[in-house]
Amino acid sequence: LESKKQRTVNRVFVAEGEKIVAELMSSSVFKVHGLFAVKEWISANEKQLHKTGRKAVEFSEKELEQASSLTTPNKVLGVFEIPDWKTDDTEIKNSFSIVLDRIRDPGNMGTIIRTADWFGIKNIFCTEDCVDCFSPKVVQATMGSMTRVKIHYCQLEKLFELYRNVKVYGASAGESDVFNTKFSKAGFLLIGNESEGISDQLEKYVTDKISVAKFGGAESLNAAIATSIICAVYRNQYFK
Amino acid sequence: LESKKQRTVNRVFVAEGEKIVAELMSSSVFKVHGLFAVKEWISANEKQLHKTGRKAVEFSEKELEQASSLTTPNKVLGVFEIPDWKTDDTEIKNSFSIVLDRIRDPGNMGTIIRTADWFGIKNIFCTEDCVDCFSPKVVQATMGSMTRVKIHYCQLEKLFELYRNVKVYGASAGESDVFNTKFSKAGFLLIGNESEGISDQLEKYVTDKISVAKFGGAESLNAAIATSIICAVYRNQYFK
Repeated sequence: LESKKQRTVNRVFVAEGEKIVAELMSSSVFKVHGLFAVKEWISANEKQLHKTGRKAVEFSEKELEQASSLTTPNKVLGVFEIPDWKTDDTEIKNSFSIVLDRIRDPGNMGTIIRTADWFGIKNIFCTEDCVDCFSPKVVQATMGSMTRVKIHYCQLEKLFELYRNVKVYGASAGESDVFNTKFSKAGFLLIGNESEGISDQLEKYVTDKISVAKFGGAESLNAAIATSIICAVYRNQYFK
Repeated sequence: LESKKQRTVNRVFVAEGEKIVAELMSSSVFKVHGLFAVKEWISANEKQLHKTGRKAVEFSEKELEQASSLTTPNKVLGVFEIPDWKTDDTEIKNSFSIVLDRIRDPGNMGTIIRTADWFGIKNIFCTEDCVDCFSPKVVQATMGSMTRVKIHYCQLEKLFELYRNVKVYGASAGESDVFNTKFSKAGFLLIGNESEGISDQLEKYVTDKISVAKFGGAESLNAAIATSIICAVYRNQYFK
């Protein structure tokens, strides 16, 4: 399940660690496919297991370590079904969504999902070649936020065509400062690839360019950082 | 040089990749100790090498891969002397500095250094048990920003005692919103450990608590993200 192909074929993914597994188990969005845990985790979580009607397979710490794709060993490893997130037309037309163009770094993807959750953003749209949100590193970095944020992989051109009346805020360098932007309540925040920025095909859908003003020498701002600052400023204008 | 001990004893560290090595080589802060590169890099950088009076040792791609501590192989690996960053009393008394309490994640440390550079923040103070800023992953994540930001490892209690008149903004959950904060021009932004927050010993030096308001379900915000949002709001009030 460490490869995207295997996850796509089997429609399941792996989540590791007590916190994330607990969040996913208690969410109605994710269905447990299998649980593998050390004895002490199983006895501590008897109630929760009983509620979901699931049994955990007892693994020794060594077995878990071998099954894990992460460097820090965990007490529990869960296999969950990949959810079928539905887009909600009214939601998209009335709220602020994040749109990712070829984000490649798992840490960035995970942090963006977690930040979206912090700011109450419900939908993230991704080009099909963005890093898979069910890869182990992304799942880890989301800290359980996938239970509250829906992630859609799709053709962004079609999305923008479909919602022609929704503004597209394109994060780019040197253009108008985010702090001077008066946001619409509904909008797409388009974030480009880590080294190449927004692609030409998508650039033409941008209705408003926004940037985080630079005061020092760094050549660029990390994609997840730029996303977060813009979302924070948006949320300061629309606190729901 | 992959261990902190070896770096401390030898006072040198490793930087990998063309961009970072070029930035460090052209900076007056960093002295080249040794360069190891593939033939094509050496011929492309003849001028620069001549200027610094340094010779690069030719390595095959395989040799570089073996010497590298990163997964993606690079064309050049540089060994640089660890600089002796001096604090500047006037600078500290008149500007905004970042202060890190037990930040452990190399990605967070690197991103914070890069973001500080973006916002023109000159000094970062760290507890001695923060992740070492010269570890390979941090150096990589800074993208060369270490040439413009000074990083000081010290006892933070002493720092705060020494600058009793400088405000200490403590990032914490649920307290007053950063967007409602009227910053002083000079200040310390204190960021706590990824899972434990600010320690009790340092908490007592905090003069103003600030938070990034939460609108969704995420339990916490990533430390580098919180730092960046607060720095962005500060910079919007004091553009130098």
